[in-house]
Amino acid sequence: MQQLRRDPVLGRWIIVQIDNPLFPQDFHHPDNAGPAPEFRFCPFCPGNEEKIPGDIYCEQDESGWKVRVVANKFPALRAEGELEREGLGAYDRMNGVGVHEVIIETPDHSLSIADLDDSQFERIIRAYRARFIDLKQDRRLQYVLVFKNHGWSAGASLRHSHSQLIALPIVPKKVNEALRGAEKYYEFKERCVFCDIIRQEQEDRVRIVDENDEFICFAPFASTSPFETWIIPRSHHSHFYRLEDRSLRLLAEMLRRTLFRLKKVLTDPPFNFIINTSPVQIEEELDYFHWHIEIVPKLTRAAGFEWGTGFYINPSPPETAAALLRECGSP
Amino acid sequence: MQQLRRDPVLGRWIIVQIDNPLFPQDFHHPDNAGPAPEFRFCPFCPGNEEKIPGDIYCEQDESGWKVRVVANKFPALRAEGELEREGLGAYDRMNGVGVHEVIIETPDHSLSIADLDDSQFERIIRAYRARFIDLKQDRRLQYVLVFKNHGWSAGASLRHSHSQLIALPIVPKKVNEALRGAEKYYEFKERCVFCDIIRQEQEDRVRIVDENDEFICFAPFASTSPFETWIIPRSHHSHFYRLEDRSLRLLAEMLRRTLFRLKKVLTDPPFNFIINTSPVQIEEELDYFHWHIEIVPKLTRAAGFEWGTGFYINPSPPETAAALLRECGSP
Repeated sequence: MQQLRRDPVLGRWIIVQIDNPLFPQDFHHPDNAGPAPEFRFCPFCPGNEEKIPGDIYCEQDESGWKVRVVANKFPALRAEGELEREGLGAYDRMNGVGVHEVIIETPDHSLSIADLDDSQFERIIRAYRARFIDLKQDRRLQYVLVFKNHGWSAGASLRHSHSQLIALPIVPKKVNEALRGAEKYYEFKERCVFCDIIRQEQEDRVRIVDENDEFICFAPFASTSPFETWIIPRSHHSHFYRLEDRSLRLLAEMLRRTLFRLKKVLTDPPFNFIINTSPVQIEEELDYFHWHIEIVPKLTRAAGFEWGTGFYINPSPPETAAALLRECGSP
Repeated sequence: MQQLRRDPVLGRWIIVQIDNPLFPQDFHHPDNAGPAPEFRFCPFCPGNEEKIPGDIYCEQDESGWKVRVVANKFPALRAEGELEREGLGAYDRMNGVGVHEVIIETPDHSLSIADLDDSQFERIIRAYRARFIDLKQDRRLQYVLVFKNHGWSAGASLRHSHSQLIALPIVPKKVNEALRGAEKYYEFKERCVFCDIIRQEQEDRVRIVDENDEFICFAPFASTSPFETWIIPRSHHSHFYRLEDRSLRLLAEMLRRTLFRLKKVLTDPPFNFIINTSPVQIEEELDYFHWHIEIVPKLTRAAGFEWGTGFYINPSPPETAAALLRECGSP
C-alpha cells in the first residue's frame, strides 16, 4: 500500500511504501553496487507475456508484437478507490490513487533504445500518445508523466529497453511551478516563454544540436546537467497528446537522432528523459505553455549543495555540449 | 571562470564552468565508475599544508591542528569582484561571485566522521559557526550553506573526512520556498511550523530517534529518502550561527550519535547533511523559521519521475526507519 504525504514546509509530496517496506539489508547502496545484475528471467521478453499483467496496449505486425504497454508489477500508485485526503495533526496525507504503466519499447532484449529505427520510435511515441488519450478520460487523474530511465545510475532496474508512465491525482509541485513561471512571463510580455527561447536559440545558434521541419533540439541555456538537451516543437502546442501523425514521425526521427548522438558522444551514458506537457484535465490550448521533451544524462552526482539550495553545478557549458553533439556525424 | 545562469521558466539558477569545461572523456559515468580512487597524495593530511591554499580558520592543541578551514582549490564560485547581473536576449546571467571553503574535520585520514569523538564534533561545529559569523560581514553574500558529502555516490571526491561551505550572492530558490512556506503557515496559524512539527513528533513518538535537553532527532513525516533524519533545537531559533556554547556541545553530541546510528544500521551508507538556516543578511530573529540539520542517506536513485514531478518515492516509511535507528544500541 502506498500513501502520499505532504511536506508541511515545502508543500512537496512524497509517495511512501507502507506495507512491505524496504529494510537496511535491501539497500545495496551505490558505492558497493556496481552495474545492475542481469537476471536470467526477463519479464519483458517475448514468450514471457503470461508472467506479467496483461497488455493495456499493443502494436504488432505479422511477426508479433512490436511495442507493448503493461501495468507495472510493482506500482508506485494503484488505480483502485477514490482519492481521500486527510489531516494527521500537523500533517496531510492522501491515499495513493494513480496509475503506473511500463512501455516495452522493443521485443529484442539486446537492443538499447538508441539502436532502434525510426519506425520503432514512431510506435513508441504512438503508444505514449494513446495512453495519454485513454487516461485523461479518468477524471481523478490530473497529470500524466511519461519518463525513461536508461542505465542503472539513472534509475533503471531492468535492462530490456522500456519507459514508464505514472498518472497522478494532483498536479505535481514542479509542474505547477513551471506552469506559473510560464504564465507570469506571458502576463508580462504577452508571449510564450518557450517560443521566445526558440527564437533566441535560432538567433544565437550556438546551442542548437539538430533541426527538422517541425522540431528543434538544443542544449538549454541554464542546463542543470552536462549535455542536457530539449526537443521542442517549433510551433506553439501546449498538449503533447494532440500531436498529429505527420508531426509524430518527425518527432520520432528527432528523438532517435538525439539519443544516437548522446550515445556516440558520451559512450552510452545513463540518462533520463521526460515529456513535459500540460495537465491532462485542462482541455483548452494554453497560450503560455509549450510541451517539450527533456533529456538529461546522469554524469554528475547531485549532492549536499544541490539539496540545500536547488542550485545545480554544471561543469560543461551547453555551448560546448551542443557543438560536440551537433558535429558528431549524422546518425 | 564561473557564470550563474537563470532558468527562464523555473527561475532556478545554475553555476556553469565557462573556461576549462569538462569534455566527454572527463566523465566517468557512475555505471562504470565504482568507488572513488584512493589518491596517493591527500591534500588534507598533516604535512601537506603548504600544497593547498592557506588556513582561513584553524583550531589546534599542543599536538597540532585539529580542525582546519581552507579555500576550495577548485571553487564553484570566487570571491573577487562585484556582483553584476545582465540580460542576454531572453536569458539572465550573473558573474560567479561567492565563497567556497572546505572544513577538514580531522587530521586523521583513516577516520570517517562517525568515528570522531564528541570534542572533535564540537570543534567542527565551532568552525562552522565561526565561518558564518565572519562571512556575514561581507554584504554581498546573502546565503551561507554548510554541507557534507560522505561517500562517492553522495558526491565526495576525496576520502579524507571534510565538509564544505558555499556562500552565495542570492538567496537560493529552495531556501526562499522554505522561508515562504513557513511564513505562510505562520500567517495562517500564528505559530512556527517547525515548532508545531516538534510538538507533533513528541506526541506521536513513532518517528523520534533521539533526544537530549536541547535537541531532538526524528525521521520527517514526508522523508524524501529512506532513513532521512532531522536534528532540530527544541526551542525556537532562526539562525544557526547564534548557537551558544552549551547548545553547541549538545548539538555535537546529537550529531555524532545520529551519524553513528546511521553507520551502524545501514553499514556506512553514503549520505549528505546540510544546515538549513536563515539568510545571513537578515539580522532579526524570524518568528516563522527554525534552523535545523537535514541528514539524507543516498540509498535510492532519483530518476525521471522525480525529475519530472518533484515527487519523491520512499520505499521505507519513516516510522520503520526511526524505530531501527532508535533501537540500534546507544552509541
